[in-house]
Amino acid sequence: MSAIPPLFEELAAKGLDPESIVERLTKQEIETPSWGYANSGTRFGTFRQPWAATNTQEKIADAATVHTYTGVAPSVAVHVKWDFEDDDADAVVEYARSVGVRIGAINPNVFQDQEYKLGSFGSPDPASRQKALDHCLESVEIGKKTGSRYLSLWFADGTNYPGQDDMRKRKRYFTEALQTVYNAMPETMTMLIEYKPFEPAFYHTDIADWGMSSAFARACGERAKVLVDLGHHLQGANVAHIVSFLLDEGELGGFHFNDSKYADDDLTTGSINPFELFTIYCELARAEEDPNIDADIAYMVDQSHNLKPKIEAMIQTVEQIQRAYAKALCMDLGTLRERQDAGDVAGAEQCYVDAFNLDVRPLLYAARERMGVPTEPLQAYRASGHTEKLAEERRGRRGASSLG
Amino acid sequence: MSAIPPLFEELAAKGLDPESIVERLTKQEIETPSWGYANSGTRFGTFRQPWAATNTQEKIADAATVHTYTGVAPSVAVHVKWDFEDDDADAVVEYARSVGVRIGAINPNVFQDQEYKLGSFGSPDPASRQKALDHCLESVEIGKKTGSRYLSLWFADGTNYPGQDDMRKRKRYFTEALQTVYNAMPETMTMLIEYKPFEPAFYHTDIADWGMSSAFARACGERAKVLVDLGHHLQGANVAHIVSFLLDEGELGGFHFNDSKYADDDLTTGSINPFELFTIYCELARAEEDPNIDADIAYMVDQSHNLKPKIEAMIQTVEQIQRAYAKALCMDLGTLRERQDAGDVAGAEQCYVDAFNLDVRPLLYAARERMGVPTEPLQAYRASGHTEKLAEERRGRRGASSLG
Amino acid sequence: MSAIPPLFEELAAKGLDPESIVERLTKQEIETPSWGYANSGTRFGTFRQPWAATNTQEKIADAATVHTYTGVAPSVAVHVKWDFEDDDADAVVEYARSVGVRIGAINPNVFQDQEYKLGSFGSPDPASRQKALDHCLESVEIGKKTGSRYLSLWFADGTNYPGQDDMRKRKRYFTEALQTVYNAMPETMTMLIEYKPFEPAFYHTDIADWGMSSAFARACGERAKVLVDLGHHLQGANVAHIVSFLLDEGELGGFHFNDSKYADDDLTTGSINPFELFTIYCELARAEEDPNIDADIAYMVDQSHNLKPKIEAMIQTVEQIQRAYAKALCMDLGTLRERQDAGDVAGAEQCYVDAFNLDVRPLLYAARERMGVPTEPLQAYRASGHTEKLAEERRGRRGASSLG
Amino acid sequence: MSAIPPLFEELAAKGLDPESIVERLTKQEIETPSWGYANSGTRFGTFRQPWAATNTQEKIADAATVHTYTGVAPSVAVHVKWDFEDDDADAVVEYARSVGVRIGAINPNVFQDQEYKLGSFGSPDPASRQKALDHCLESVEIGKKTGSRYLSLWFADGTNYPGQDDMRKRKRYFTEALQTVYNAMPETMTMLIEYKPFEPAFYHTDIADWGMSSAFARACGERAKVLVDLGHHLQGANVAHIVSFLLDEGELGGFHFNDSKYADDDLTTGSINPFELFTIYCELARAEEDPNIDADIAYMVDQSHNLKPKIEAMIQTVEQIQRAYAKALCMDLGTLRERQDAGDVAGAEQCYVDAFNLDVRPLLYAARERMGVPTEPLQAYRASGHTEKLAEERRGRRGASSLG
Repeated sequence: MSAIPPLFEELAAKGLDPESIVERLTKQEIETPSWGYANSGTRFGTFRQPWAATNTQEKIADAATVHTYTGVAPSVAVHVKWDFEDDDADAVVEYARSVGVRIGAINPNVFQDQEYKLGSFGSPDPASRQKALDHCLESVEIGKKTGSRYLSLWFADGTNYPGQDDMRKRKRYFTEALQTVYNAMPETMTMLIEYKPFEPAFYHTDIADWGMSSAFARACGERAKVLVDLGHHLQGANVAHIVSFLLDEGELGGFHFNDSKYADDDLTTGSINPFELFTIYCELARAEEDPNIDADIAYMVDQSHNLKPKIEAMIQTVEQIQRAYAKALCMDLGTLRERQDAGDVAGAEQCYVDAFNLDVRPLLYAARERMGVPTEPLQAYRASGHTEKLAEERRGRRGASSLG
Repeated sequence: MSAIPPLFEELAAKGLDPESIVERLTKQEIETPSWGYANSGTRFGTFRQPWAATNTQEKIADAATVHTYTGVAPSVAVHVKWDFEDDDADAVVEYARSVGVRIGAINPNVFQDQEYKLGSFGSPDPASRQKALDHCLESVEIGKKTGSRYLSLWFADGTNYPGQDDMRKRKRYFTEALQTVYNAMPETMTMLIEYKPFEPAFYHTDIADWGMSSAFARACGERAKVLVDLGHHLQGANVAHIVSFLLDEGELGGFHFNDSKYADDDLTTGSINPFELFTIYCELARAEEDPNIDADIAYMVDQSHNLKPKIEAMIQTVEQIQRAYAKALCMDLGTLRERQDAGDVAGAEQCYVDAFNLDVRPLLYAARERMGVPTEPLQAYRASGHTEKLAEERRGRRGASSLG
Repeated sequence: MSAIPPLFEELAAKGLDPESIVERLTKQEIETPSWGYANSGTRFGTFRQPWAATNTQEKIADAATVHTYTGVAPSVAVHVKWDFEDDDADAVVEYARSVGVRIGAINPNVFQDQEYKLGSFGSPDPASRQKALDHCLESVEIGKKTGSRYLSLWFADGTNYPGQDDMRKRKRYFTEALQTVYNAMPETMTMLIEYKPFEPAFYHTDIADWGMSSAFARACGERAKVLVDLGHHLQGANVAHIVSFLLDEGELGGFHFNDSKYADDDLTTGSINPFELFTIYCELARAEEDPNIDADIAYMVDQSHNLKPKIEAMIQTVEQIQRAYAKALCMDLGTLRERQDAGDVAGAEQCYVDAFNLDVRPLLYAARERMGVPTEPLQAYRASGHTEKLAEERRGRRGASSLG
Repeated sequence: MSAIPPLFEELAAKGLDPESIVERLTKQEIETPSWGYANSGTRFGTFRQPWAATNTQEKIADAATVHTYTGVAPSVAVHVKWDFEDDDADAVVEYARSVGVRIGAINPNVFQDQEYKLGSFGSPDPASRQKALDHCLESVEIGKKTGSRYLSLWFADGTNYPGQDDMRKRKRYFTEALQTVYNAMPETMTMLIEYKPFEPAFYHTDIADWGMSSAFARACGERAKVLVDLGHHLQGANVAHIVSFLLDEGELGGFHFNDSKYADDDLTTGSINPFELFTIYCELARAEEDPNIDADIAYMVDQSHNLKPKIEAMIQTVEQIQRAYAKALCMDLGTLRERQDAGDVAGAEQCYVDAFNLDVRPLLYAARERMGVPTEPLQAYRASGHTEKLAEERRGRRGASSLG
């Protein structure tokens, strides 16, 4: 019977270097979010998990667990409102260090308080705008203490009805406030501006698409960039194309990874269309290989699991992302370029199909062994009994803040 | 300058009878939901309103206020979980009567409790299925006491991930449970089965579209019908067509009115596409005129307002629905049928355009005067100071349950 | 019975000046497309109309007929490939003048020839790219002769499969070619760059959304702007918001008017959601009133009617656009701004609802009388027998080129 | 370094029988369509291919070539209008037999002729309805001669504008005509009723979704079933769920395979979301294993390639479908069912993820060797020079009919 060769041989036969692929896989970094370890839900309710983290330390500890099992999740994004109390930034930093991770992006929260009913930077109420501005400026200060490279901004601002407010007026409020925050950032900090087409606003969102993020970023300066959340697009949007366009413009700042079938469903990355995730990683891998492209990008997860155990879901997520990256690195680039230039449509596509359908476990196992983590992180974690142990420790504590 | 004739004359010139249109407008009935008067929100938070109802009596009182101002909202839909405590069904009925409204559809709640994490009728857990069944059977009993004609069923059941559960197994669980509930209903009760494509389940919903509602209804019997919630469709669905198809099949049981731009946005009916609402009412008005069609349909509102004052929003909603119905009744049917049969595409469409662009206030004013309510209900309500009065009375009480 | 006052009085009571509204309505200009008068179809076939125009003169004559009946359609957009033969630009200009219209935007065609199989400016084939460039440069030359203010560019470029081609490479080809064309334009010419998310390319489109049009325009220069085709958006996109954003950025160059329910359906403007058209005109009307905004915009129709008679459809379209503009001009701006600033959500929205539900025929009739055209253009045209006359004249001639 | 075991061993270790999987793969049958070998295009034009089939014999020969290379495509679907002339059904059958394939489903064509401008079975014009009915009855007669088991019905019927026609009246026309055709079918023939939400009709489609197909099928009888075309759904529809629901109802008759990103894009099956194709095959594979389910289903391809060489595209398609089926057969069903019943969300999903990420080439190679076809059909075909040979033979012949 015809046999397929071992993966390393098959790759070598195509002129690829398996060793360098493994090396790149050990360098991958995926930031997980503190809020991903606490209880969260939908508007129809929250299903509480006994093992969910209930305070900042527990969230960071859970992020550290994910890093322990995967080796590629060394930092944790934090939410200013939920993760910090008065003057405890240093303590948070220190705690993170003690459990083996570092603080990543700083996320202000300007949507939860009652004052933000009509918006934050875009609200018709000057007091709400000022409160939001103050909070963002304070977040910059905390970010200085935590050594955060990124100030990650998402706004729930928008309107629910035609005529509810003046969209151009709100745009001008936004420009002014963003510029103020930008000017307060240290040189080492980059502003990431996230977009979203709808929810919680259901008629218009003040920063609705990447084009608007890009315009606001340009109005601020070079260290303001676009943040792509995979679930923040209208149905059908070609996210790989947007990524490629932003890379070429030098405007891609970072990602919020997740997956979705309908709207901002916040599902496990790669769970609905893993092939799309692979095409996005093809763009990223090619950008890394292109000296003309700035591929210094923040790879962050943003998911909201109300059914899956949190740590388990996050390890599963990391594996999905590693797999997509590994497959993108297995691309037979020589053949691909040749066929693309020759207009060989089916042949060029087939290069993608072939790389995607490889079983990349040998590459992932090699990278994990090199990093000293389990070859099958999810299996190892599930076998460890850690979730059950957390449940015992944490059961009964008050559910932490609910958001995704 | 060319003048347009008064509306009644213009209609009469087309062979329509304005008096009978006014008569039909006074017969219109729109049921409002008890939960529409309490605080509600999105998964990102709830903006509390000081005037929001905080208990069942207040919700019913607010529904009565809407009826007082509009004259066409004589009943209120109730949620079993939120609106009833032990054995107080009779008291609820009596209170409603005392403020001038009656109890409408009974809505069980099988999605909020922790047991429903993986579903209710479709859950893999037998205890969850039994709990849901018991609750629905209890709802039937309450419905007997409240004299409700409708048992209105919406299920949050579904899965978030491919493979999470066996969809055919769940379908069979559903069929069996629905049949049990159906068989427990008195002859005077009709079961309405609602469908929804997604949210809070994000991969599959056990009753995802009208075809599934219809199949489950047929598996139950003649008094099981389909409930159309205007916001429970994928983008692009032609709701007027679905309504027309269900009318012809004798399977249309009722509506949940609202509007949406993206998903189940639960916005004010007619606020995003009033022309679509008009086309739906064209189907309904024509069905009323057709002796072969059973047009005994429950017209219910289901909206979730987190920004607009509740009563105000509901009166505005009622006005939008009245306007759509009035315009549908102004259709020049003779010309329309003639042009349709002649294949005069632009001409037939123009009949719709012309009816829709009429200013139907004269008809609405006449109907309201006949019913003894203000000619401009929203204006009158806003001028009354009632919202402010409620705020004073209710401020500080605990926010009621949050759902929409 | 309560009566509503005549429209002019009602407007005056709100502080609006009906006379100035009528004046603005007479100044409105809507350009119709030459290709809208010839046969067109879907990929499933073309239904030939005996009255369809079969050559450039007939198309221009039909556009002139629309202007005769409406008074607001004084120019006609032309397609270089379909409307010009060697050196006849002067003759075309002269013919247009003779029938009372002028030549409007110049539209190159770089999608129909076999060479464009893999794209035009973005093709991997250098010869295809050169052919497209030469054609666009020739179009600029023709535009100089026709005195066209606009070079209107739409590209069918894209790919059908992941991996088929390198999206960043294609983007760079596009930038270079667009800059070359831009530099060849006379000072009096503005480049309009159209975007479209899909069709005829079904995986990615090289200029997929307004953000990409905007980036390409910025790479060219100040006289390159964005063209918004109402049907070229993913489901749910808030087009009024995009329009408002582009107006504020000074990047809105023009429109292709039509309507759609699903994709690029090319239906009659306002036929599916006339309220959305109204919200777009609210943005446009407010921009005209704002001295800080450049509201010099090309208002063009782009529709493809395979069922409706062409001229009839175009007159109906013009009426829909006039109606939307008239209603937008009836906005009670003082009340609106006051309620918006006060956060009165329902009240501000109601200003939109009230303006939209007015019967604006008195304003339109006054404007039309002032322009000396029929008060009911569609009715007058249908009564004229012109379509039948054209059918007799043109029946049997070869169908003109099929495109939309 | 950790090694992964050979696939057959890994499967056996999970309790699966690789031999029986290989056996099932050799039994798979995929029908290709005659029209998929001729030139086709979009409304913007057709890019002619010199190797495209130009007549019925060539189309059948090309289908036979696909079968020669894959071993699982033994039949070819035919279009009555395009593939038959007077009384030549026997000759077509004989020719197919001579090249090693058989005639599959019969597809009437009631959309292309001018009479179908306003519809076929749903047209307001009685003559159009009669013509469509006659054509379908004639197709039944041809189907008797070709021994076709399936009469496959797709209707382009619908309207473009609200009000254009009476949707309930059209529904009744449809019911009556379908019943007439059904009653004319021999006992050995099954009617497949296809649905589609839009295009070429852009407001409503008379058979818009599976629920409508199902209702029409029930109105006919037991041998009328639903045909699922993968591209005929609104964005977000869960096709695997629809398939599972129809299987459970005993109403699933067949498939039209293809893939799409936006609308009815008619791309290569599995090219946009291969994981979704896999989830559909999971439903199908499980149904085959369930004695209570009738899994006698017509697996047909319906694609329209205007860029890829036709035979190449079809072989690539067959490979994608085989791969999806093979992966579905590798499911660790014992673990899956256990985790599903235990409510282990992440664990159950992971069974899907693991099966999907296997490299199933060893299974496909074994099946192909058993069938005596190349282990890599696409590679073998591309290496054969057959496309170039066809180009030489067919170049210059008139392009065949254009449709997809």
